Amino acid sequence: MKPLFLITNDDGYQSAGLRHLVSVAKEMGDVVVMAPDRNSSGVGTSITTVRPLRVKEVGNPGEDLFACDGTPADCVKMALEHYCPRRPDLVLSGINFGSNASINALYSGTIGAVIEACLDGYPAIGFSLLTHSASADFSHCAPSIRQILQLSLQYPLAGGTGLNVNIPHLPADEIRGIKVCRQAQASWVDSLEKRTDPIGRPYWWMTGKFVCDNPPADSDVYALRQGYVSLVPIRPDFTDLSAMQNIQYYEQ
Amino acid sequence: MKPLFLITNDDGYQSAGLRHLVSVAKEMGDVVVMAPDRNSSGVGTSITTVRPLRVKEVGNPGEDLFACDGTPADCVKMALEHYCPRRPDLVLSGINFGSNASINALYSGTIGAVIEACLDGYPAIGFSLLTHSASADFSHCAPSIRQILQLSLQYPLAGGTGLNVNIPHLPADEIRGIKVCRQAQASWVDSLEKRTDPIGRPYWWMTGKFVCDNPPADSDVYALRQGYVSLVPIRPDFTDLSAMQNIQYYEQ
Repeated sequence: MKPLFLITNDDGYQSAGLRHLVSVAKEMGDVVVMAPDRNSSGVGTSITTVRPLRVKEVGNPGEDLFACDGTPADCVKMALEHYCPRRPDLVLSGINFGSNASINALYSGTIGAVIEACLDGYPAIGFSLLTHSASADFSHCAPSIRQILQLSLQYPLAGGTGLNVNIPHLPADEIRGIKVCRQAQASWVDSLEKRTDPIGRPYWWMTGKFVCDNPPADSDVYALRQGYVSLVPIRPDFTDLSAMQNIQYYEQ
Repeated sequence: MKPLFLITNDDGYQSAGLRHLVSVAKEMGDVVVMAPDRNSSGVGTSITTVRPLRVKEVGNPGEDLFACDGTPADCVKMALEHYCPRRPDLVLSGINFGSNASINALYSGTIGAVIEACLDGYPAIGFSLLTHSASADFSHCAPSIRQILQLSLQYPLAGGTGLNVNIPHLPADEIRGIKVCRQAQASWVDSLEKRTDPIGRPYWWMTGKFVCDNPPADSDVYALRQGYVSLVPIRPDFTDLSAMQNIQYYEQ
């Protein structure tokens, strides 16, 4: 039986990035798509508990293409429990417009879907392309994505293992390869811009500047700046194991 | 100068849990509150990028009590950048109604606020009480919270360090102490319940059963089941450092 890929994203089911990821995955296996019905960027691992969810078929007859009015994590739960004809070999998310490297992973709906799949015991991979241009040429990504999917089928990742893959916005022949990395530390500064509405009341837009000076050589930001695809293994666990010993005084 | 606490939550600024946390913190220092204007459970580290944010003063004159129409993470960014009179010594979140132990931390808006504060370079603590009862007696928590705040001021946590504190719903004299733990692995099963609306169309409610059989003795779920307060050190980083060596084959 062919491998089965469950695919979602956070830009919505009509995104060109999703379509491109589906086309690469279909070279290697069967595909079920369950994606948000609208842009859900920045929602992280959000789930929807305060209202019910709806699902609609949005593909041609015979295509397993569904849109859900929830978050990327909702989409993963919904598809795994009710819409996949068999257990998927891999859960994929993307291709996202814009970087999910470094601390962006914590806010990302693309990576939120990966975390959800990991929590559900599946291996999962999120793909992001480092551009926000609506006319981005996703075909530049195809060789890297194809290579990562082939390796992930050849050496199956354990359930609960995620990969956060970011791809420089470069022609395929200028991409220098793939680097296994860790998440770079960074910060967003000046996040909120104040404006005044026509009747004089203040409001704020989320914006900001991503600051990551001198990223270490084993980090995703460094690899991307050198022209490599960054691949960070991720786990659905915030525990800081290295801190546990140092804070034993809380047990007093 | 007194210590300054920035306090938020995910249940909204009118929550009894927030008021209780504020009252304990005020014993030790000054308080600024910036909390969501409505229930924001399950939103994780979501940030709001698709619409602007508003802030309103909701306290008595002289009280620094603000409500924001965004997520807990939005509240933290907003307060740190624009509403705190000086650098807070600690960012606090809660007291949440219901457990944020184990994998619940990944979905939690309470912990989302803690992660945001860590990303911004602050030490932060999230508090949750293991009950969903609206009439919960939060005074049971006070001694544990007081002890954790006092220790966190006495031995200041490094910026970027978070604590995920969960408190059993027991009378104070039945709580056996505080345990430093790691996040237990667990799963939510049967997450989506299908119903049919009055005109025959299906919809789904997020629900599910939390399954955590035989949690290890160093985990938060184990400690809570034994009657201890669980305290998990957390970091805003999904990197699985232990997996990096094993997946070097992706660099081929």
